[in-house]
Amino acid sequence: MDDKLMLMIPGPTPVPEQVLRALAKHPIGHRSGDFSKIIAEVTEGLKWLHQTQNDVLILAASGTGAMEAGIINFLSPGDRVLVGNNGKFGERWAKICEVYGLNVQQITAEWGKSLDTEAFRTVLEADTAKEIKAVIVTHSETSTGVLNDLETINRHVKAHGALIIVDAVTSLGATNVPIDAWGLDVVASGSQKGFMLPPGLGFVAVSPKAWEAYATAKMPRFYLDLGKYRKEAAKNSHPFTPPVNMYYALQVSLEMMKKEGLENIFARHQRHMNATRAAMKALNLPLFAADQAASPAITAIAPVNVDAEQIRASIKKRFDIIMAGGQDHLKGKIFRIGHLGFVSDRDILTAVGALEATLQELNYEGSTAGAGVAAAAKVLQGS
Amino acid sequence: MDDKLMLMIPGPTPVPEQVLRALAKHPIGHRSGDFSKIIAEVTEGLKWLHQTQNDVLILAASGTGAMEAGIINFLSPGDRVLVGNNGKFGERWAKICEVYGLNVQQITAEWGKSLDTEAFRTVLEADTAKEIKAVIVTHSETSTGVLNDLETINRHVKAHGALIIVDAVTSLGATNVPIDAWGLDVVASGSQKGFMLPPGLGFVAVSPKAWEAYATAKMPRFYLDLGKYRKEAAKNSHPFTPPVNMYYALQVSLEMMKKEGLENIFARHQRHMNATRAAMKALNLPLFAADQAASPAITAIAPVNVDAEQIRASIKKRFDIIMAGGQDHLKGKIFRIGHLGFVSDRDILTAVGALEATLQELNYEGSTAGAGVAAAAKVLQGS
Repeated sequence: MDDKLMLMIPGPTPVPEQVLRALAKHPIGHRSGDFSKIIAEVTEGLKWLHQTQNDVLILAASGTGAMEAGIINFLSPGDRVLVGNNGKFGERWAKICEVYGLNVQQITAEWGKSLDTEAFRTVLEADTAKEIKAVIVTHSETSTGVLNDLETINRHVKAHGALIIVDAVTSLGATNVPIDAWGLDVVASGSQKGFMLPPGLGFVAVSPKAWEAYATAKMPRFYLDLGKYRKEAAKNSHPFTPPVNMYYALQVSLEMMKKEGLENIFARHQRHMNATRAAMKALNLPLFAADQAASPAITAIAPVNVDAEQIRASIKKRFDIIMAGGQDHLKGKIFRIGHLGFVSDRDILTAVGALEATLQELNYEGSTAGAGVAAAAKVLQGS
Repeated sequence: MDDKLMLMIPGPTPVPEQVLRALAKHPIGHRSGDFSKIIAEVTEGLKWLHQTQNDVLILAASGTGAMEAGIINFLSPGDRVLVGNNGKFGERWAKICEVYGLNVQQITAEWGKSLDTEAFRTVLEADTAKEIKAVIVTHSETSTGVLNDLETINRHVKAHGALIIVDAVTSLGATNVPIDAWGLDVVASGSQKGFMLPPGLGFVAVSPKAWEAYATAKMPRFYLDLGKYRKEAAKNSHPFTPPVNMYYALQVSLEMMKKEGLENIFARHQRHMNATRAAMKALNLPLFAADQAASPAITAIAPVNVDAEQIRASIKKRFDIIMAGGQDHLKGKIFRIGHLGFVSDRDILTAVGALEATLQELNYEGSTAGAGVAAAAKVLQGS
């Protein structure tokens, strides 16, 4: 049905009407006093959302651009880095490191499993010469729905002294990432996730310790040179032409998030994860990530005896709901339900109900009509 | 007056209502068939606008990001490049080249003057060893309102054999940049200019000869790696998460541009340039660039006996019209009227009329009430 699309993918996520309306306002000059005020306001809001007093810089870029900036501004070619890789995004950050001539050591885990925090401890403790300059970790691995134990990994990094660089693209605004409390040095994210915005902005939070590293880091960069952003941000300005309309939208979404409150936002994502997972279990759909490694932003499901792409195609055709497929070798093996950003309890019931109906149509074995919605509703009621 | 702002700056430029409305549509999935169709459609439209069969790639970035991509994808550290520099943007491209370790030779001209095409010929002819790998030219220098003679410079480059890399940020969609007819290798631009869009997208057109250079070019890059964009564009896809809503807007603005027609668009910009310049002369306001070097996108004015910032502040306060100031050492010395993108004859009369009234209020010497509008109207009537 036209205009009835429902996004349940891990980005772009649904965008509130008031944010869309803000997006449609006429642009103003990006060097005007009025725009400086907007920069000041959204920067304050971003610091609140990031739970930090560090700089939070805004780039016209995707999350990958933000993450690349987070890596290349604080390191020099030949530097040794430790990269956690248990999915498509961990893989991507390792690739970026290699492109820039870093000396990359990876700690890997099978896709769908979380990174072994002890492996980080072992490598870091063995590095008594302190050659490892940075540890790069994907918090919520979007490709698999796994939440890595950033808090524990970070503790080991802190004991060592290296920088910690975090891909929080699908975790920021969905689960607790207390930058200052944990002492995270570099945290990158993107607008089309927990921020409830369309794609187009990337964000990078930078600690004083990371800025120290910046001072001696030697990698060529210009558009992604965060020093330029910091310098201009101090004057409520931007080094290039920022996407003015996206700033309007960011203003509104940050207001909405403040109204809801961080604790409530995190609780909502947690509840939606729990409800979705309970429903999948009730529907006899195997979850790809274990309960203790599950991301509050996205749930990956590995159906048996049916192609995951068939489920996706059917739920799209019948109910106009878009779920995400598996990436690379997981294509056809898993599908992923995004539940981050502007998602309500009702959306979870809707998605589960439609999935349930789809499974009935496909004669999926062992799934009882009504069981998914019942299980989800029970979690949502908190009983 | 609230909501009465009128932008007469060289970006962001005014955005049509139908484009703003498109921007406010709900995002769809960027990996969906529906979005692939949009990519295919806008890519065709961009090729039409760029007058080329070459690839035209779309980046989530400002014009600077697009231009950096245009440089770093086709060169290797140590390569000799010739950079034209007669304003803030020429200066910026030279800086990017230096950051990436290129061997930069500059051909400079005073800000407000155009680049000497003969200087390019001399340097290129002297380079019999063909060490110069690329020539980098800003077509319309936004900081000064100067249009460099790209056609002639390009002829000398063609005779030499180097790549030509063009900043067409404020010329594309405002004046003729026939990429295939002239054989331009790399042409970069940005959405908030002639495209009638808000900022947020950068565009890079790439010739087969440039792709040959890409094959051996060795500079670190990932987010700005155009090879990734080419590979995905061939499948009507995008390597990262593209700003979906900006694509909707681009769809609409390209439709509008096709309806108007390239010749009409260029004629309109030419007419507005002529009308603006005639008005400034009638108002005794010295033009910063000579007639033969004037950009159809922007006119810079160097008023005498009054601070340019005073004129800008006054016209903003009284009439809600935003004009651009001078950059760097030209701050206070010039102001700039942008007349590119979604600008009509009426807008030119409005801006001139308001400027005229402002000059009267400031008792600007030698400016006669009515003379500016009369002169502009005469040009607009084609008489």
